[in-house]
Amino acid sequence: MRIPILVIHGGAGSWRIDSGFLDEVKKALVNALVNGFKLSYDGSALDMVIEAVRTLEDSGVFNAGIGSTVDLSGNISMDAGIMFNDKAGAVGYVKYPKNPVLLAKYVYEYTDHILIVGSAADELAKKFNLAPHPGPNKRWIKLYREYMEKIKQGEKVATYYGKSLKLWMNIGDTVGAVALDKNGKLAAAVSTGGVFLKLPGRIGDSPIPGAGFYANKCGAAVSTGVGEYIISTYLALRAVDEICRGVDVITASKKALEILTNRFGANTAGIIAIDRDGNLYAIYNTEAMPWGYIDGDGNIVLGGLPKTL
Amino acid sequence: MRIPILVIHGGAGSWRIDSGFLDEVKKALVNALVNGFKLSYDGSALDMVIEAVRTLEDSGVFNAGIGSTVDLSGNISMDAGIMFNDKAGAVGYVKYPKNPVLLAKYVYEYTDHILIVGSAADELAKKFNLAPHPGPNKRWIKLYREYMEKIKQGEKVATYYGKSLKLWMNIGDTVGAVALDKNGKLAAAVSTGGVFLKLPGRIGDSPIPGAGFYANKCGAAVSTGVGEYIISTYLALRAVDEICRGVDVITASKKALEILTNRFGANTAGIIAIDRDGNLYAIYNTEAMPWGYIDGDGNIVLGGLPKTL
Repeated sequence: MRIPILVIHGGAGSWRIDSGFLDEVKKALVNALVNGFKLSYDGSALDMVIEAVRTLEDSGVFNAGIGSTVDLSGNISMDAGIMFNDKAGAVGYVKYPKNPVLLAKYVYEYTDHILIVGSAADELAKKFNLAPHPGPNKRWIKLYREYMEKIKQGEKVATYYGKSLKLWMNIGDTVGAVALDKNGKLAAAVSTGGVFLKLPGRIGDSPIPGAGFYANKCGAAVSTGVGEYIISTYLALRAVDEICRGVDVITASKKALEILTNRFGANTAGIIAIDRDGNLYAIYNTEAMPWGYIDGDGNIVLGGLPKTL
Repeated sequence: MRIPILVIHGGAGSWRIDSGFLDEVKKALVNALVNGFKLSYDGSALDMVIEAVRTLEDSGVFNAGIGSTVDLSGNISMDAGIMFNDKAGAVGYVKYPKNPVLLAKYVYEYTDHILIVGSAADELAKKFNLAPHPGPNKRWIKLYREYMEKIKQGEKVATYYGKSLKLWMNIGDTVGAVALDKNGKLAAAVSTGGVFLKLPGRIGDSPIPGAGFYANKCGAAVSTGVGEYIISTYLALRAVDEICRGVDVITASKKALEILTNRFGANTAGIIAIDRDGNLYAIYNTEAMPWGYIDGDGNIVLGGLPKTL
């Protein structure tokens, strides 16, 4: 028997927000921790991370689920992935479900596949009677219109982070969770609305095992940040690989992120990780990465919170 | 200056075919080697692998491009990926282009993204004026109808490889290429129609860097076989990682495939790999994996050919 632990994050970024929004961020994190941890008594690490991520998706505070940003066409499209018992399930470029993490769970449970994408994944969500997404929120629609207007007027706008990383990093991105359950098993889950003004159909690291998430018997990790950089350096896999080699979770997370930072610079990514003994760590090369954990001893701790404007 | 080398494969599998079809396989491999190698004089390793894979896609002999199989809905849907200069480009779940590898090249050249999927990727193919796919060939339509008929009559048919791997392994799958160019640079390219009767929207290893393909300064590798198993073990990444550690290309390829075979059994996968000195290797745990290479000394060698019925 282990003392269960659940760790979550709300996205690495600059997070330039006011104090009212910061309160919403904290509340959403605590809600997700509590909801996820409730399942630690009868459920598995997988149940815990899925419920935590589902709560973060529903909060509307983060760029995932209800709070998902829009692509260049003005539409939402989301990615999500889960991993448990050496098996992964994921979805990419989905528009229909309110909770992509639940669709990833169905891919995990009911198919022989790992990753299902696009309109076919949306069809699957309907078959499984998942709740529909209400569409992008007002904040994103407003920002989208502002940028489209600038583009129409010939203003040179950095429409994608290759040109101006900071543009979307102001808002924060992906949400994720890792957990250790009472049986000593580890799980990871992640969900995202992707990057603002991405090309439609673009898939980032979130639905790719080893990039956006990874979990095995040694450890579990989830990534957040620039998807292309995370795919290129296998952030989650590299961290868990190190843990499997006997490296402690702090050094392992640092080393993995260091590879990415050395290659692509700062303000690009973050990671949370946990090992089978319940040691956990959160690290990011951005200004903030709201994260927190809850454990069987009754501790709830939040960290990485942004400074307010 | 290096002596350029191009290595290709036509898919790991049981390949139960007659001698007439074997001749077509050989002809298609030689064509692809010659077409790809023509670009070694003025072009890069990337040009070589893309032209080789494009030729294999157009041959109609392999499960990629023109020869792509169908999913459970009876439609084609294809994946492809390329990697060169530490950068990857890939597409998944595409139905429009005749040559998914060319669309992967456009993602690589003209976007900040790595992976673009679904209808949005097809839209991109149209924007780039790529030639359209003529749809599934008669062989696949016939086989699809046979299986659908059996299913309708209540016959218990293994519709997916989780239930019966051999079903689709009879036909062979993915095509791929790795190359070393005269400047000592390495590239990898891969293309596939996926697995027969897969769920629509399923993405395998082929468009995922590190799984279906990988190339860096040390080496390049491409995988073929059961996509989910290859994603789960990062077949191409593990092989190239070993090469970067100074392990020879033969041992590196063997070790990487061994991890997969130990976990998922035989009849599941194969890999071709090359290092920066032009050492190359092909290995598979299936009955056959038609492959070949061509080099600047004028050698053309074929191997891994299936026995005929």
